[in-house]
Parts: sequence; C-alpha cells; structure tokens
Amino acid sequence: MSKERVNALSDGVFAILLTILILEFHPETIKPGHLSSLVLQQGPLFLMYVMSYFYVGNSWLFHHDYFIYVKHTTRMLNILNLLVLFTVTWINYAMVLLIETLTSGDTSDIQVAFIVYDIVAISISVSFLVIYRYLESHEEMHSFDGIEERYRRIRSDPIRSILIYLVSIGATFFSNLLAGALLFAGVIFHFVAYLRFSRVIHYGVTKSLTTNVAEKVVKEVKKI
Amino acid sequence: MSKERVNALSDGVFAILLTILILEFHPETIKPGHLSSLVLQQGPLFLMYVMSYFYVGNSWLFHHDYFIYVKHTTRMLNILNLLVLFTVTWINYAMVLLIETLTSGDTSDIQVAFIVYDIVAISISVSFLVIYRYLESHEEMHSFDGIEERYRRIRSDPIRSILIYLVSIGATFFSNLLAGALLFAGVIFHFVAYLRFSRVIHYGVTKSLTTNVAEKVVKEVKKI
Amino acid sequence: MSKERVNALSDGVFAILLTILILEFHPETIKPGHLSSLVLQQGPLFLMYVMSYFYVGNSWLFHHDYFIYVKHTTRMLNILNLLVLFTVTWINYAMVLLIETLTSGDTSDIQVAFIVYDIVAISISVSFLVIYRYLESHEEMHSFDGIEERYRRIRSDPIRSILIYLVSIGATFFSNLLAGALLFAGVIFHFVAYLRFSRVIHYGVTKSLTTNVAEKVVKEVKKI
Amino acid sequence: MSKERVNALSDGVFAILLTILILEFHPETIKPGHLSSLVLQQGPLFLMYVMSYFYVGNSWLFHHDYFIYVKHTTRMLNILNLLVLFTVTWINYAMVLLIETLTSGDTSDIQVAFIVYDIVAISISVSFLVIYRYLESHEEMHSFDGIEERYRRIRSDPIRSILIYLVSIGATFFSNLLAGALLFAGVIFHFVAYLRFSRVIHYGVTKSLTTNVAEKVVKEVKKI
Repeated sequence: MSKERVNALSDGVFAILLTILILEFHPETIKPGHLSSLVLQQGPLFLMYVMSYFYVGNSWLFHHDYFIYVKHTTRMLNILNLLVLFTVTWINYAMVLLIETLTSGDTSDIQVAFIVYDIVAISISVSFLVIYRYLESHEEMHSFDGIEERYRRIRSDPIRSILIYLVSIGATFFSNLLAGALLFAGVIFHFVAYLRFSRVIHYGVTKSLTTNVAEKVVKEVKKI
Repeated sequence: MSKERVNALSDGVFAILLTILILEFHPETIKPGHLSSLVLQQGPLFLMYVMSYFYVGNSWLFHHDYFIYVKHTTRMLNILNLLVLFTVTWINYAMVLLIETLTSGDTSDIQVAFIVYDIVAISISVSFLVIYRYLESHEEMHSFDGIEERYRRIRSDPIRSILIYLVSIGATFFSNLLAGALLFAGVIFHFVAYLRFSRVIHYGVTKSLTTNVAEKVVKEVKKI
Repeated sequence: MSKERVNALSDGVFAILLTILILEFHPETIKPGHLSSLVLQQGPLFLMYVMSYFYVGNSWLFHHDYFIYVKHTTRMLNILNLLVLFTVTWINYAMVLLIETLTSGDTSDIQVAFIVYDIVAISISVSFLVIYRYLESHEEMHSFDGIEERYRRIRSDPIRSILIYLVSIGATFFSNLLAGALLFAGVIFHFVAYLRFSRVIHYGVTKSLTTNVAEKVVKEVKKI
Repeated sequence: MSKERVNALSDGVFAILLTILILEFHPETIKPGHLSSLVLQQGPLFLMYVMSYFYVGNSWLFHHDYFIYVKHTTRMLNILNLLVLFTVTWINYAMVLLIETLTSGDTSDIQVAFIVYDIVAISISVSFLVIYRYLESHEEMHSFDGIEERYRRIRSDPIRSILIYLVSIGATFFSNLLAGALLFAGVIFHFVAYLRFSRVIHYGVTKSLTTNVAEKVVKEVKKI
C-alpha cells in the first residue's frame, strides 16, 4: 500500500501538536497593569515549551526519515503508526502538568509532573522501538540495502533513551532539578539519535542512487 | 474525479480528532500537593480515552482501505464522505460526557452518557453501511474484481455492530457495567470487522496485481 | 504554479472547521443527575450545528469542484483563496453566537446573532463571487472549454444567495423565526448552487475527455 | 529528499493557525440583551484579528514560493523549517495579548503587548532570513538559475522589516498609537516583500521554462 495517507494522517497530527502547545500560554485573565510581570513570569516556563516543541518536531523528523526507509506501508504498520501518534500526543498533556506545577511551585507536584513526562517519553521511545523492530523483521519493506552494518550500531538508541528517562524518574526522589536536567538530556539525546538514524538512511539513499546509476552504465556498456 | 482531496480532508479530520481527545484531560486547576491523586484519579478515565482513540483510529483504518477499493470519487461519494466524518466527530462529544459523568459518579448520568455513546456508534456504523452499499451499487467505481464472494460474507458487518450497540443501550437499564462492557465489545468488533474488510480488499489488490502480471506474460508469449 | 499546496492548506482549514464545531457542545459542568435534560436541551441547538456543518462541508464541495476547473494556481488566486478561507472560518463564530443566544432566549440577542450569521454568509458568497469572476477573466486558467453557455446561467448564483441573506437580515426586524427560516433557505440554496456549478464542471470534464478520445481516433484514422 | 512532507507539515500548521485565531473572539458569557454592544465592542479588535490573519496568510505565501525555489529538501532545511513554524505559531499568542489589553485599556499593558508582538515579528523575519541565507549558500538546491541579480536586490528585505519592528518597539515608549501604526506598517511591508520575492521566483520559473523550450527547439533543429 502507498505511504501517502499514513504520512498525511501523521503530518496532520504532528502539525496540530506543534501548533497547540502555544495555546497553553494564553493568560486567562490579565490583572490590569500587570502584563509585563505576567510575561516575565512565563519566561522560565517558556523553556518547557521550547523543549516540548522540539521534542514533537524531533519526533516528526524521525517519522519523516523512517518513512523514507519504508518502501510501502502495510496493515500492521498503519496500526503501529497509530500507536506512535498515540504516545506523541501525550507530550502536550505532560507539558501542561509541568507548566502548571512549576507555576504553583509545589515540590511534590513538580516531582509527579516530571515522572509523568518521563513516562510519556519512555512510551514514545518504546513505540519507536516497536516500529524499528517491525521494519527489521520485514526486509521486503526496506527501500534500500547495504546499510545493515551501520544500522546495527544505532538500532538500540531507543533503548538508550529509555534508560536516561528511567534514571530521570529515579532522580526525582532526590532532586527535581537533577530530574529536569536528565529529562532535558533525554530529549537532547533523542535529537542525537535522530541525527545518527538520519545519517544511516541517507547513506542508504545515496548508495542506492549510485548503484542505480552504476547499473545503468553497465547496461549501456554491455549494449556496445 | 481524483480521490486526493477527499482523502486529504478526511485525513485532516481524523488527525484533529486523534489529537484533541487528549485535551480533555488537562486539569483546569491543580490543588497544590494533590497532583498525584489527580493523575491517579484520571487513571480509570484513561480507559475511556484509549477506547475512543482506537475507535477513531480504527475508523481511519476503515476509511483508508475503503478508498483503496474505490477507483475514483464522485460528487455523491464526496457528500456521503462528509456524512461519515460528521458521525465520527461525535466520538469526541460522547467521550467527554462519559468522562465527566464517570468522574461525578451519578448513575443515571452515566446511563445517559452510555446511551449517547451507543447512539454515536450506531450513527457511525450506519454511515459506513451507506458508503458500503453505495459502492456495491456502482461497480464502475471498484478498483478490482473477483472479490464479490468474499465481500458478500462481510457486507453485513456494520449491521452486526449496530445490533451490539442496540443491546448495549438496552443493557443500560439493568447495569451500567454491562452496558459499558457491551460498548467496549462493539468497538472491539469494529476492529475485527476492519480486519475482515481489509483482508478482502488486500486479496483483491494481490489478485489484480497477479492478473496484470499474468496478462502481460500472456501478451509477451503471444508475441513470440 | 501547481494547485497542490493551495488545496492542502484549504483542506486543512476545512477539516479543522468541520471538527471544531462540535467542541462548542461540550458541557462545562454537569449538575449531577441532570445530564438527560442537558442533552435534550441541546437538541434544538443541534439543528444550528447541523446547518453549520453542512454549510462548511458545502463550501468544501464548492472549493473542490472549483479547483478541478482551475488548471493551475497563480499568485493572485492564492491570495484570493486566503480571502475565501477567511470568510469561511467565521461560520464557527456565527454559530457560537446563535447557539448561546438561543440558549439564553433573549429575543434582541437572537436577532443580533441572526444578523451576524447573515453577514458572514454574505461575505462567503461575495468571496466566492470574487473567485468566480477572477477565473472568468483569465481564460488561460480554465481546465476545459465548451462550457461557456452553461456557465453563464449559473454565474450569478452567488448574487442570488446574497439576496436571500439580505432579505433574512430584513426579516429579523419582524420575526426571528422567519429570519431563521430564510437563513436556512439560503444555506439550502447554497447547496443547490453547488449542484448546478458541479454539473457544469462535470459536463466540461466529460466533454474534454470525449474530445481527447475523439482527437486520438481521428489521428489514428489519418495514419491509415 | 522530496519536499512533499515538509510542505504537508507546514500547510497543516498554517491551516490551524489561520483557523484558530477566530476562536479568541468567542464570548465566554453574553449578558442577556447585550450581544449587540458586545459585538460592536469587538469591532476595533477585529482589526487586530485581520492583521494577524493576513500576517499568517502572508507567511504561508512566502513559504509557498520559497519551496517552489527549493528543488529538494535536506535534513538541515527540515530542521530550519521547524524553526520558521515555531516563530509563526507565536502570532496567535501575541494577538491574544493585544486583544486582551486593548479590551482592558491599560496603557502600560498595551505597550507590553505591542513589544511582544514586535518581538514575535522580529523572530519571524529572522527565521525567514536564516532560510534565505541557507538557500543562498546551497546553490545545488536552487530550482532555477539566472535570477541572481534580481535576487540580490531583495535578499535584505527581512532585515528591512526587522528595522521597522525595532523602531516600533522604540515608539511604544512615546505613543502606543504610533507603535501600532509602525507594527501595521511592518506587516504591510512584509506583504510588499512577499510580492518582490514572488516576482523574482516567477521570473525564474518562466525563464527556465523558456530555456527548456528553446533547448528542445535547438535539439530538434540539429536533428534536421
């Protein structure tokens, strides 16, 4: 089956997620004369928003490159893709909890919010791990060959990110600041993992292009 | 007419529905120090959310495979498709009623919420039944042939799911738990019906591919 | 320029509009034990929702067929299309006013809400009139010829619908019921106008297909 | 890599932004008998909405023409595109602040709202400047040649718009009316800059078409 619609659905979900994160910053009421303090107060929360935005954006980048690697979709991949989107939509929920608890300042609430965010992040990594493994076990769905060795080095990156988030959950019992730093590190690692994945995919794209050209040359030469 | 835009509109609607379900879980206010109990309290409601998410997702899977079967769209199918989307958007409304009444715990309210959800589910099944029948009566719109017999076995699946939801409505007058279980069973059956439908479609796809290849071989052979 | 992205943007806007109308029906609070009366009370408002949904859906159908007629887009058509989307998004606002005033029941408020809805409807008709006229004056953008005479009969349909809405505004000063009936008639006429437009377009599509086939036959015959 | 999905994601974000701006105008409660005064009171705010709508629409027009110029996307352009969308989504936030402060009427709050809007506008211009410069330094990504000289005249337009917004920030310390007029002028200039950019792109499109035709003619002539 063509990848067109599974991509269209996913692009739609990612587009909505990227856009609605900002809606959480709408002040419900502005005490006259206090907008500047309100905006400045939102400053630190802005960092949580930026992190969440780039987390969603990064997930889109992953999805984008993953579906370059996939030659065509299947019934099972359509279903697994709904699972990926399911976990990604929870970033919005986790961000809201984090922003609201950081505003109120209650330490135990902030801890819960960090744990929720970490669990969401783990779910996302698990869902990506599942579609990685699914593709590994269906060679006929690969767009190009010859990347097996390179791919092997990065195939456990989702597991690595899960470990970071698990450590972050553990850290909440000692220090929210440390837990937050680890969560942030996890999101950064997610981006690094994307770059590593993307490089393998593009190596494959370039290689298959070169092979195609080479094959054509060989064909032409044989004709002579 | 090309199916491109009717698919694009539908993918957009499904993407929004999948994404906004989660927005209902945003806590409006968090009593400081009570986030953990709030999150745990949302736990059971989470099941309603999961059911609704996979109900919408499942409707997308149906829609996806249905439009593989459809060769091209028509004015009438465009209009009927708006009807399908109309009924699917009501899942959000039904889920909200269910979540709010389960939170407040009033038995008669929960009964009403289950009845509303069942009516929405019946409407969805009816709308799918309509586009099934529409396609049956327009053979020139089929993408491939030779699936008539297999299709006949599943063409009444929407009616079967309507019956389950009707029983669920009746059950609300005895036990909300039973009604909920039947509603859940209906959504599960919806997924089973999708799998059955999808298998017929893919049998058709594979068969028509094989036929095409066979025809080409015959042609080539005749040339010799 | 390719029509792809102007269609994608428009399909996105229409999809969101179709989906968010229902969000207005979410009850903010449910007094325990009163859900059934709340749902029944929403019944009459449901009619306003259905009207708005099919108004948006109908605008999509128009847009869909219009862009079949358009061969390619231009900078000016991209800009005019933003104007069309601008007016269509206001259906949501007008519907909310109508629903809220019909709930509270204040006669003068309902009058204002009907006037606002009529003004929105007039704006939509004007924006469609503008893109009709734009295409008329740019023959090189037509996808097919030979429909001029048929098109002439329907080119003033947007003006006809504007007249209905103007009468509806006038009627609000006598009877809200009459004004509502006229608004409803306007939306129905909008659908009739779509069918008339669509038939002309499809006559053009079929004719150009036939001409192409005929031309090919002539060519083949000449070869002999 | 194909531009398809980066365009789909962006069209999705722009479509949502265009549609949700209007949601800010929903009255939360209507004091019975006061809808007409409420609607009239929203009148002046309507101007802010129109400005924001066309600002977003204009950004889409830019994006649309920019990606005609781009032959294919790259990993880096996908990332930079997320940056562009990031800044554009903030128009919604800035508009809400502007509308709410203009409603309450507090002068210092209005000043803050104008400064926020100017900062958002500057961010958007910077993000467009970045993707301009990125494309300039990657000639292999250009869709067509021969526009270098014309492009040179407009390549600093984003910087010009940044200057206007900086002056507008300065003006808030003297007069909010002047600051608002300058912000408005900046958005108008944005549209002028789009037209200038678009003309260069379309000159390139036309020229490359002509060249292709000419080349074919030369080829045909050589055959004789």
